[in-house]
Amino acid sequence: MKLNCDMGESFGAWNMGDDAAVMPWINMANIACGFHASDPTVMARTIALAKHHDVIIGAHPGYNDKEGFGRRPIPHTLDEISHSVAYQVGALDGLCRLNAVTISYVKPHGALYNQMMQDPAIFEVIVSTIAKLNTARVLPLSLMVLSRANNEAYMQIAKQKGVSLLFEAFADRAYTTEGLLVPRHETGAVHHHPDLIKAQVLQLAQGKVKTQSGKLLTLQVDTICVHGDNPESIETIKEIALLLESANYNK
Amino acid sequence: MKLNCDMGESFGAWNMGDDAAVMPWINMANIACGFHASDPTVMARTIALAKHHDVIIGAHPGYNDKEGFGRRPIPHTLDEISHSVAYQVGALDGLCRLNAVTISYVKPHGALYNQMMQDPAIFEVIVSTIAKLNTARVLPLSLMVLSRANNEAYMQIAKQKGVSLLFEAFADRAYTTEGLLVPRHETGAVHHHPDLIKAQVLQLAQGKVKTQSGKLLTLQVDTICVHGDNPESIETIKEIALLLESANYNK
Amino acid sequence: MKLNCDMGESFGAWNMGDDAAVMPWINMANIACGFHASDPTVMARTIALAKHHDVIIGAHPGYNDKEGFGRRPIPHTLDEISHSVAYQVGALDGLCRLNAVTISYVKPHGALYNQMMQDPAIFEVIVSTIAKLNTARVLPLSLMVLSRANNEAYMQIAKQKGVSLLFEAFADRAYTTEGLLVPRHETGAVHHHPDLIKAQVLQLAQGKVKTQSGKLLTLQVDTICVHGDNPESIETIKEIALLLESANYNK
Amino acid sequence: MKLNCDMGESFGAWNMGDDAAVMPWINMANIACGFHASDPTVMARTIALAKHHDVIIGAHPGYNDKEGFGRRPIPHTLDEISHSVAYQVGALDGLCRLNAVTISYVKPHGALYNQMMQDPAIFEVIVSTIAKLNTARVLPLSLMVLSRANNEAYMQIAKQKGVSLLFEAFADRAYTTEGLLVPRHETGAVHHHPDLIKAQVLQLAQGKVKTQSGKLLTLQVDTICVHGDNPESIETIKEIALLLESANYNK
Repeated sequence: MKLNCDMGESFGAWNMGDDAAVMPWINMANIACGFHASDPTVMARTIALAKHHDVIIGAHPGYNDKEGFGRRPIPHTLDEISHSVAYQVGALDGLCRLNAVTISYVKPHGALYNQMMQDPAIFEVIVSTIAKLNTARVLPLSLMVLSRANNEAYMQIAKQKGVSLLFEAFADRAYTTEGLLVPRHETGAVHHHPDLIKAQVLQLAQGKVKTQSGKLLTLQVDTICVHGDNPESIETIKEIALLLESANYNK
Repeated sequence: MKLNCDMGESFGAWNMGDDAAVMPWINMANIACGFHASDPTVMARTIALAKHHDVIIGAHPGYNDKEGFGRRPIPHTLDEISHSVAYQVGALDGLCRLNAVTISYVKPHGALYNQMMQDPAIFEVIVSTIAKLNTARVLPLSLMVLSRANNEAYMQIAKQKGVSLLFEAFADRAYTTEGLLVPRHETGAVHHHPDLIKAQVLQLAQGKVKTQSGKLLTLQVDTICVHGDNPESIETIKEIALLLESANYNK
Repeated sequence: MKLNCDMGESFGAWNMGDDAAVMPWINMANIACGFHASDPTVMARTIALAKHHDVIIGAHPGYNDKEGFGRRPIPHTLDEISHSVAYQVGALDGLCRLNAVTISYVKPHGALYNQMMQDPAIFEVIVSTIAKLNTARVLPLSLMVLSRANNEAYMQIAKQKGVSLLFEAFADRAYTTEGLLVPRHETGAVHHHPDLIKAQVLQLAQGKVKTQSGKLLTLQVDTICVHGDNPESIETIKEIALLLESANYNK
Repeated sequence: MKLNCDMGESFGAWNMGDDAAVMPWINMANIACGFHASDPTVMARTIALAKHHDVIIGAHPGYNDKEGFGRRPIPHTLDEISHSVAYQVGALDGLCRLNAVTISYVKPHGALYNQMMQDPAIFEVIVSTIAKLNTARVLPLSLMVLSRANNEAYMQIAKQKGVSLLFEAFADRAYTTEGLLVPRHETGAVHHHPDLIKAQVLQLAQGKVKTQSGKLLTLQVDTICVHGDNPESIETIKEIALLLESANYNK
């Protein structure tokens, strides 16, 4: 079970997060590509840090919206989404080559991620874009998506285009009976207590999650998304990593 | 003798140049990469146009300065220049893959180009960046630079890093006795009469240029840079292309 | 009857429109404020041009979205809209002071304009923002809005806040029976023939418009919006101005 | 003796500094205007915070360069500088009106500040710009500049344009025998020990500063610039404020 975390979200003189503290404990770094956050030098620094800790590198493209941190659903045509993703993945790729490393996967950010999970047309154009990028790659890129109770429709589209999916689940988010994330504005949507988070991690590592109704739901989970926004959450990441290691889930 | 021209300099709703009119007559398109001009969709459109006309694609990275169109010498560290070039070349590369084409060369834009020609440290970091990008490429990128009477120093650095140089000359710029461009603010710096421009093209095609003093100077010329800013200059590009073809220089 | 037109939409090296050709024929210039288009120097130049032709100056604030030219409905909180409008109006005001002129009105641009006309909460926050700006002004700012068959609701809000409204109509847009603009994607939504446009101008000058059904509808019209995107449309603006003058509507 | 400090340097999701902790201890807030840092909502929040603590508001315009935080000397024409300053001061003014407060002074930021102190033409264009802005103001804006051993030349230009100057000195910077700041890259340029900083504050409050040579130099000081980048420096600001109060310098 691999831990993935958003990395490289600083920008110019503005710092965000403590990548140096988080990187040793995660397995996959979702690296911002300069549109919703980051700049070429922050990206290069983050790639070097990931390489140093032997962390798998993922491109984390978002809408070109620093003021809104890529969280605002800005209308785009499907072509524009394709161009934007190809641009950002390519840009990160260029910087990876300076460090003799390579990108393994793509995980859209923020509003782009949400829209991909809600709109099959957007999902499909992202899959197609990755398929085209893969024709020239030795190591094909996978696409990281939100795992839900039923991933069939998305798996079919991806299979058709020959793109592998990585299913992620969240350590700190409550799940509905249908296997969806409880919307953030609802009570209990986010787990804050480390014990609750760690209990969910152990379930997820076994491909299950306890939903709001208390029922255990089966969920395909290739990786767990963690957040390292403050010292407490970074400490929790460390504990999750050690927990998975002690339970032999850290393969 | 190949003609190269800056292409893809529109941005969002703002149009610049008439790429569709110029592309049929040139051989190499220097495509802006979204920093000093362009955006992912303009880049994709320009790549498709170049592909349609069988035009060689070059990356045209510049400073991240749309307000100044990349013409302002903004201070950058050498690392920042390296990261910026790798980012932009990678981004264009990503978009090229959507069209199943590839980049052949890099030509820095505006202030970055000028600084590269004046500061050997900047030249060297750009060459090194390209060398690193080339380790993962089937088709290695060349670097397009300004040809001068003596290109020895630059050729040595490039050779050491294993990067090929493409020497360009200008159809419409007067040359000093030393083989430098007459600074733009001096009288006679820019040729405006098509006959004068075409005469210089024929000299350049033979590896020579008549300097301000009237003397013919030997100049290594792999490609001639042309500008298509208005209907008149586009007409001149067409005439230059036909002239080179009729004189069998269009190889 | 006054003609208003979007002005100052160039940005850096990118030119848009031919303000020098349009300005002599209009009465009110909606000047972009640097968010969806323009920059401080373009704004200063546009203000000077308006002053030279004795044209009334309006602030034309839009979303901070040059890539989308302010046409994309980017989600904003009401507070963010208020701050954005105050920022942009203030910025234009600063530049007006350099030229010893002043702003007379505010006309939101693009997506912000559309959302203001659809969402009373957005309309109200814009009116409130203008009311607060007016407390420190000798010449209070009006708000230019789209005139519809029934403007009552908007007039009440504006009256409550003590802000004057300017109702505009479009010379080149077809109107529905209900007095709304026919959506752009429908056939016949935009009038292209100058005769049709001029006929509608004469109706509007008398406070009427012939709707799609052929019925004449009464419409409050303080100003007519014209567009000068190309030589033909600029010629039409000129003809409209001369027509209004010859009919003595140019007060 | 008043303390001034840069405020409102956050941007979108990126936080910088702890304005809420610093604001109670300073007298003058140099508020970033959205070009090198900040955005309309951060500006509005900072204005409200300053108003709450009865802190004098200053505009802190910089180059339009978020990536470089306004620290890079980007070439600008004098007109461009004038337009940029008028735009930014106007924008802050617009937001101040929403809070029924007003700007009292202008302090250029970063590279613009440094260039103003080195290039009399840039100083003069900034003074002229402020003079023009002042014609429409009830409360005229002053210009905050670096105090040096001899301020005569700058005072003459400002007097000629009718603009008041506010001379600032630095609590934590060493001074040369000539009354200039010791360049940052030299040893001892920046005082880190709170005792040293507080000793200098007491000298400055009496219009003197001990230079590198140990000699006391007379310096006109209207305000002392402090920095609150981290918890230690914020604690030092508090101690300076209490020190000035206990010594009755806090008028």
